[in-house]
Parts: sequence; structure tokens; C-alpha cells
Amino acid sequence: MRDRVAEIVDSDRFQWMIVGVIVVNAITLGCETSPELVAAYGGLFDAVDHLALAIFAAELVARLYAHRLRFFRDGWNCFDFFVVVVALLPAAGPLSVLRSLRILRALRLVSMVPSMRRVVTALVRSIPGLVSLTGLLVLLLYVGAVIANDLFRGTGDPRFADLGSTALTLFQITTGDGWSDVMRDLMVKQPLAWMFFLAYLLVGTFTMLNLFIAVVCSAMESEVRPAEDEVLAEIRALREELSRR
Amino acid sequence: MRDRVAEIVDSDRFQWMIVGVIVVNAITLGCETSPELVAAYGGLFDAVDHLALAIFAAELVARLYAHRLRFFRDGWNCFDFFVVVVALLPAAGPLSVLRSLRILRALRLVSMVPSMRRVVTALVRSIPGLVSLTGLLVLLLYVGAVIANDLFRGTGDPRFADLGSTALTLFQITTGDGWSDVMRDLMVKQPLAWMFFLAYLLVGTFTMLNLFIAVVCSAMESEVRPAEDEVLAEIRALREELSRR
Amino acid sequence: MRDRVAEIVDSDRFQWMIVGVIVVNAITLGCETSPELVAAYGGLFDAVDHLALAIFAAELVARLYAHRLRFFRDGWNCFDFFVVVVALLPAAGPLSVLRSLRILRALRLVSMVPSMRRVVTALVRSIPGLVSLTGLLVLLLYVGAVIANDLFRGTGDPRFADLGSTALTLFQITTGDGWSDVMRDLMVKQPLAWMFFLAYLLVGTFTMLNLFIAVVCSAMESEVRPAEDEVLAEIRALREELSRR
Amino acid sequence: MRDRVAEIVDSDRFQWMIVGVIVVNAITLGCETSPELVAAYGGLFDAVDHLALAIFAAELVARLYAHRLRFFRDGWNCFDFFVVVVALLPAAGPLSVLRSLRILRALRLVSMVPSMRRVVTALVRSIPGLVSLTGLLVLLLYVGAVIANDLFRGTGDPRFADLGSTALTLFQITTGDGWSDVMRDLMVKQPLAWMFFLAYLLVGTFTMLNLFIAVVCSAMESEVRPAEDEVLAEIRALREELSRR
Repeated sequence: MRDRVAEIVDSDRFQWMIVGVIVVNAITLGCETSPELVAAYGGLFDAVDHLALAIFAAELVARLYAHRLRFFRDGWNCFDFFVVVVALLPAAGPLSVLRSLRILRALRLVSMVPSMRRVVTALVRSIPGLVSLTGLLVLLLYVGAVIANDLFRGTGDPRFADLGSTALTLFQITTGDGWSDVMRDLMVKQPLAWMFFLAYLLVGTFTMLNLFIAVVCSAMESEVRPAEDEVLAEIRALREELSRR
Repeated sequence: MRDRVAEIVDSDRFQWMIVGVIVVNAITLGCETSPELVAAYGGLFDAVDHLALAIFAAELVARLYAHRLRFFRDGWNCFDFFVVVVALLPAAGPLSVLRSLRILRALRLVSMVPSMRRVVTALVRSIPGLVSLTGLLVLLLYVGAVIANDLFRGTGDPRFADLGSTALTLFQITTGDGWSDVMRDLMVKQPLAWMFFLAYLLVGTFTMLNLFIAVVCSAMESEVRPAEDEVLAEIRALREELSRR
Repeated sequence: MRDRVAEIVDSDRFQWMIVGVIVVNAITLGCETSPELVAAYGGLFDAVDHLALAIFAAELVARLYAHRLRFFRDGWNCFDFFVVVVALLPAAGPLSVLRSLRILRALRLVSMVPSMRRVVTALVRSIPGLVSLTGLLVLLLYVGAVIANDLFRGTGDPRFADLGSTALTLFQITTGDGWSDVMRDLMVKQPLAWMFFLAYLLVGTFTMLNLFIAVVCSAMESEVRPAEDEVLAEIRALREELSRR
Repeated sequence: MRDRVAEIVDSDRFQWMIVGVIVVNAITLGCETSPELVAAYGGLFDAVDHLALAIFAAELVARLYAHRLRFFRDGWNCFDFFVVVVALLPAAGPLSVLRSLRILRALRLVSMVPSMRRVVTALVRSIPGLVSLTGLLVLLLYVGAVIANDLFRGTGDPRFADLGSTALTLFQITTGDGWSDVMRDLMVKQPLAWMFFLAYLLVGTFTMLNLFIAVVCSAMESEVRPAEDEVLAEIRALREELSRR
């Protein structure tokens, strides 16, 4: 019985059916953003939504039954589980924001289509190599925010009113969006503000650049390494062959 | 007869003549954007345009006659065919926008100059490797737009009025242009809007960065691979030589 | 006695204790940016700050005693020394800006956590390779500022009022933030201003791009080189082995 | 006599003296941007400027005498010659803009300092590989400008008033600076303007990205190639050695 269910839920036809349900549900959730469409077909959208949720829940139960707790060893399954459980929570009162998150179900598409799955797996695998540099950037942001708040709070600029706003403004500066406007506004009251901005931009951008290069290099290494290893193995085999004669 | 025509249309002199016609036509089409020049030389521009179109049409017929249906196997020929046929359609009424597209003929220059042709061929070949990541970005844009529309529609900001506008605004945020202005406008009414922007920027930029790295790596691989293969072939030949003795 | 102290200050437990003090101190310094928190717990923050400083000073003295002048051979130690000494200076009168710099102590975290230390060491090592190109960029900025000041001072635009402002504006243009606004404002009075902006953008961006590529390439080289050297060593060993027979 | 002059002008001491003159002259030219400094020391600045120019002219004559027409074979010498001759032209009437270009002499620093010279030589060498892609970008800009001018001239937006303005605006969009402002202003009158902007941004950015990757790859190749060639040479030597026995 368990094998029979596993066979069905792992079959291609079943998976493509689920993909179909995901796509249809994503479209109706998109349509629900339009008041006109909701006025006209609101009942239909709700019905599709409930039906899709029921199908996902049934699918999840079937997969849990088929694979038992091994199910949770795969990160993708955990994601599917999380998305469906969130949708089953009562979306009322303080949890009403969860209603917006229903569309996250559309991301299940990623876990169903193998080529997208590979791309995201590659993305996730590149994260550990970035932890140190990201920690450094967060530390720079914190230190910079404390200094900037101390220097510029007195100007009354709302972008430097408290530590949170200052950190947000410094993050904006790091992305390079409108940093000159922020600086020129401050320089009216504090003519030397440009020194802080210049220093922060140079340190921040240089660190970001190196973060980027570290990612490129490690990606490149995993590309070049195997080729080199193949060459080395070949030469060593040759050497061994010769010494055996 | 067919061979004779093929010889002519494939000759260098003929091709350079066509390049000349393309350049002259591109210039007159550029001049037509100036009302003063049109008032003075409008008739001349129209004459050049009609003449160029006639030459292109004749060239196309000659090449079709010479190469028969093999003509359509080359993507560049299909492009030439498309551009000329579009120009022959009556550019009136609902099709008047096609008149603007006459200048696309200037892009025929790319198909006539070998070095540009190589560049564009390389560009086009890099597309398949990007399909999965682009699909992921479009999915993120759709999911992000549904959530952002749900969260921010109530603020009355026209940039989040409907699903299309929201998607356009999120695309703008992904390119990093003026994202802080959009965020600060929203934070007046929804002080927690920064959480969505930060999350979307980080996920979006990280995915884009990886898309970029994937392109660099695959380009690099096709650079490094042949060199490695040469080394391997050399070592294997050496090994075989030794074992034969 | 000296060995005993060295053993203690180099022990893992002692180092983690210092990390703890750094983190607590960084948090209280962050809290001091909020007037409400200072009003409520100002005394506590000051006490923590003084205690942390005392601990850092004691640690420094102990490490100086244990390692003697070898202590200053390590750049990280010099950084620790600098940060603590700055904090001990009287932060009053013209030196009151130093009070803001107390938070720099949080950067000691980098010198205590090995993985961050490696990242920053890598960053610092990449600097010498950039000196020539940075010099070129500074020279371009200076030459560009003198020309731009000469051309645009007459327009009365405060962004081109003196050499310093002009250099700051050109730096802004190089980062690509709002360069079109600056240009359009100037073009009202000097319609040909776009020629300078186009030339400066192209030269500046092209140089920056090459600076970036130089960094990537040298990072890549240090990645590829060792692998190549390994292969070469292997082949040479094989060759020697054969000639010895 | 000629050898004696050549010995002097090529000596390190002479070259460093010229570097000193360049730096001093660059500083006085920078000071001349300040009306207060000119009022106080204007005579001194003029004297230094004339003296520097006399030294440069004398140096040039000496080097021309020493190296004869071989002098012009080196691109750097041509640059030095050009800069000095420009400064000798009467900077009055229509040529007054040349006065601003006096500061270009500061760029002679690049030709005197070997490490900067290498950097610029590398920059210049990377240009030929970019000609095709740059040509493609210029073609895209021209075609895009003709289409955009045709579509948006009717809106009365000054940024699309004539072909030149439109091309400048499209260049601005390609750099990503404020493209969303331009688009939103147009969408008030032409709600479908986003289609053009999206298409142009995607095509333009994709081409730019590939231009960038092409540069990185060719830089990388010249890095990896020699290492590979060394390995190949080693293996071939080994093979030959074996076959000779």
C-alpha cells in the first residue's frame, strides 16, 4: 500500500498535475489583486484557492505517508510543508498578513521543475562562503550607523533621526542610490559631512567588490579544479606505469 | 543562371554596396526626425527611402532565387526577410507604429559585417544557459508584485495601484534606480515597509549576482576547457606510445 | 611569570571573554544613540563603557608584558593598541569628535574572530596591486576637476563653485548617481556641457572597469597558478625519473 | 654631442626633475581656479606656468634632437608633443577653450611614471577587442533614438525633442541613472511607454553585460594561456626525449 502511494506521488504525471495546480492558483491569486475581477469572479477565485489548498494538503499527506520521516530530510519538502501549513492557519486578526503570503505557494514551482531546482540549490550552496564577508558588512553598517547618528543627529534630518533610520540610510548609500542627495542635504548644516560619506563609500564599496570577487573566484575554482585534477591523475598513472616496468 | 545570381549576391562587392545603401538609408531616416530637414528635403528623403526599400526587396528576391528554401535555414536571412516585409506592409491606420520600425533596417548592418555578426551570434548563444535563472527572476517578480500590491495598495501610491504597476515598480527596484525614494514615500503611511524592500532587494540582487556569475563561469569554461583537453590529449598520446613499446 | 601571562592571554577562554566584552560594549554604545534609553539607563551605559575600557587596557598591558615589543610586529595588535589609546584620550574640547570613534572598538571583533581576520587580511593584501590604477583615477579626478571648474564656474552652479566642490561632483558622476541631473542643470546655460560629461563618463568608467578586471584577474591568478605549478612539478619529476634510468 | 644630449634626457635625475616640474605646474594650475589665490599670487602662478612651459619646450627640443624622428614612433612621445604644442598656441579668441586644456599637461605624469605607464598601456591594448561590441552599442543607440524620437516627440518632453537629446536620454537610461523618472513622466501621456523602456533596458543591459564579460574573458585568457603553454611544452619535451632513446 505504502509503495503504491509512493509510486503515484513520485510519478511524472502526478508531478505535472501539481505544477498545473500551482500555476492556476498563482494566476487566480494574481487576479485577486484587481478589485474589478474580484467583484465579478470573487467566488470562483475563492473556490479555486480552496480546491488548490485541499489538493496540496492531500499531496503532502500522501507524500508524508509514503516517505515517512525521511520526507523532512529534503529541504525542498520542508519548504513545501511550511508553505501549505502557513496557508491552513486562520488568516484573521494579527495573522492577516499571512493572507499575503499565500502567493508564496507559487514558489513551489521551483521545487517541482528540476532545472530551477538546480539553480536554487546552487544559490543556496554559495551562501556559507559568504558568511564571513556578510558579517563584516553588517559590522561595518552597525559601526557606521553609530558614528553617523552621533555626527548628524543634531542636523534634524529625519534620515538620521535614530539608529534604525541611520542604518537604513547607510544601506541606501552602500547601494549607491541617491547618496549625493543625502550628502548635499547634510552639507548645508555640516560642511565636512563629505569626509564621512567618502570614507564610508570607499570602505563599503571596496568590501562589496571583494565579496563579489570571492564569489566569482570560488565559483571559478570549482570549475577549474576538476580539470586540473584530471590532468594530475593522468600524469600520476603514467608515472606509476613507468616505475612498475 | 541560378549559379550566376548566387555568385553575384554572395560577392564582396555586392555586399559592400548593400552596406552602403543601409548606411545611407539609416542616415536619411535619422534626418527625418528633424521637422526642419523634412520641410527642406522631405521629398529627397522619401525618394531615398523608397529606392533603398526597392533595392532591399530586389536583393531579397535574388537571394531567395539563388539559395531557394535553404535561405531560411540561416537565422540572419530570416531577420533580413522580416525587416523588409515589415517595411512593405501599408503603414497606415492601426499599423502606423510600424513606420517607426523602418529604422530596424539599420540593424541589417549587423548581419552584413562579419565581426558584428560574430558578436551577436555569441550573445544569442549565451541565452539558453540563462533561461532557468531568468524564469526564476520572473517568478520572484510575480510573487513579489502580488505581495507588494496586497501590502501597499491601501496607501494610494499610484506606483502600487494595480498588479502591472507594482511589477514595474519592483523591476525598477531591482535595477536599483530610486528604490529609496519609493521606500521613503511608503514609510510615511506604512513604517514597516522597509522590511519588504530590504528582503526583496537582498533576494533579487543575490539572484541577479548569481545569474551574472553563471554567465561569466560558462564563458570562462569554454575558454579553459580546450586548453585542458589539449594537455590531456598530449599526456594520453604519450602514455599510449610508452605502452606500445 | 611572563610565560604564565602569555599562556592566559593566548588561551581560547580569555579570547572569548574579550569577544563578549566587545559585543556588550558595542550594544551599549548603540543604545546610547537613543535619548530615551540614555535618560533611563545612562549611568549603566557609562559604567559598562568604563568597565569595558578598563578590561581592554588591562588586556593590552598584559599582552604587551607577555609579548614585549614583538607585540607591535602584528598589524592587528597595532590596531587594538590604537583603538584603546584613542579611547583613553580626554574627549573634550577640540577632541570631542573622538567620542564618536569609541564605537571603532567594535571592529576589534574582526581581529578576534579568525574567519573575519582572514577576510580582512585578504582585503588588505589586494591593496598594493591597486595603487597604480587608484593613482590614475585620482589624477583623472584632479585634471577633470580643474577643467570642469574652468568651464562651468561661470554658470553659478554651487556644485562647481570651487575646486573641492567640483572634485566631489565629479566623484559623484563617476559613481553614476544622479549624473544626468547635474548635466541637465548645466545644459540650460551651457548647451555643450554634455560633451564634457560624456567624455568624462566614458574615460572614468572604462578605467574603473579595468581596475575591477585587474583585481579579478590577479585574484584568479593566485587561484589557477598553484594548480598549474603542481602539474608542472609532477611532469618534471617524471622526466627526471626517466633520465635517471 | 647628440649622444651626450641623449644621455642627459634619458637619465633618471633629469626625468625626476621633469616630474617635479609637472607636479608643481599642476598645483599652480589648480590654485588658479580660486579667485582669492589668483588675486594674491596671480603673478607668481603665471611666472611658474611660463617657466614650466619653457622647460617642457626645451626638453622636447632636446629629446627631438637626441632621438630624431624615432621620437615619434613612441605613442607617449606623441602625447607629450601634442600637450606642449597645444600650450604654445595663442589662447585667445575662438581658441580660448584651449586655456582650460593646459591642465592636460598633468597627464604627462602618466608617461613619466613607469607603473602608471604600464597600466595605461594595458588599458589602450584592451581597446581593439572592444571595437565590434562598441559599434553594436552605438548602432543600438542610434536605432533606439530614432524609434524613441518618433514615439515620444509628440509628448513635448524636452528630453525627446530632437535626435541628439533623445540619444543622450537613451544613453542616460543605459547607465541606469533615473530611467524610472523619465519613464513615469512619459507614461502620463503615453501609458504604453514602459514597453519601449523595458525592451531597450533588457537589450542594452544584456549587450553591456556581454561586452564586460568579453573583456574579462580575454584578460583571463592571456593569464591562463601561458601557464597551459608551459605545461604543453614540458610534456612535448618529455615525449621527444623518450622517442629519441
